[in-house]
Amino acid sequence: MDGELVEENISIPEKKYEYLDHTADVQLHAWGKDLKEAFEQCAMAMFGYMTTIESVELKEVREIHAEGDDMESLLFHFLDEFLFIFSCEPYFIIRVVEITKFDTENFKIDAVGYGEEFDLQKHPQGTEVKAITYSAMQIHEELDKSEVYVIIDI
Amino acid sequence: MDGELVEENISIPEKKYEYLDHTADVQLHAWGKDLKEAFEQCAMAMFGYMTTIESVELKEVREIHAEGDDMESLLFHFLDEFLFIFSCEPYFIIRVVEITKFDTENFKIDAVGYGEEFDLQKHPQGTEVKAITYSAMQIHEELDKSEVYVIIDI
Repeated sequence: MDGELVEENISIPEKKYEYLDHTADVQLHAWGKDLKEAFEQCAMAMFGYMTTIESVELKEVREIHAEGDDMESLLFHFLDEFLFIFSCEPYFIIRVVEITKFDTENFKIDAVGYGEEFDLQKHPQGTEVKAITYSAMQIHEELDKSEVYVIIDI
Repeated sequence: MDGELVEENISIPEKKYEYLDHTADVQLHAWGKDLKEAFEQCAMAMFGYMTTIESVELKEVREIHAEGDDMESLLFHFLDEFLFIFSCEPYFIIRVVEITKFDTENFKIDAVGYGEEFDLQKHPQGTEVKAITYSAMQIHEELDKSEVYVIIDI
């Protein structure tokens, strides 16, 4: 009975449905000549998901410190510290991340981020980053290239 | 060292990152006076996620048949059959779903869907539905109200 509709008396039923629990994630893949650069790039990838990153000027600087028990938790907390900078007023969006201390013996990082206060008039709204996750996290260090994979909840 | 930036010579690093594997899902919650209506509403909820459903006219009808081994797989295949109608050319978008046979003994459904060919000029693009899932599926049948929960990949 597929085909053209001849009946004209089909009624549109009342809506008895709703949409719940939208969840989503995206995997960041970042790399560099060493692990330090791969970490910096990963943080910049996170901010790049939040807006059109080219719209961000380098007006101010913010400093973060992160510690971990291993490289995975160090990467997690490093990103989480930067996410926190964006998460509370005045929301601060970062374009350039530089790690100033990268201690892979004691799992400590000092880093700075250059950017400016987030302004919807100036910065196109990208996607909200809700959380960093450990899910399927990968950290690969090699002689001439290192890379990391991090899944973030959006 | 947080604060105004005095250095003017911070360079913007080359991008060494990419975004991979965007995944997302949404949970459909649909209900009705009985399970048959809840199933119908669930299929309409799925189509309602694909476009602004009010833009869809009832021009043609499509028929589907679904079978399962239990109510969960029956619901899965029922939705999957309707998803298939949208998934191949000519893409057909459905506004009204009516189940004409609802056999919960043998787990068989016959149903029709009223709608029209999908047309981006006419139907605002919603979100692509990639797949039905069994994840956290729930089917509740009670005397005066039944409801179902289905997570779909988008």
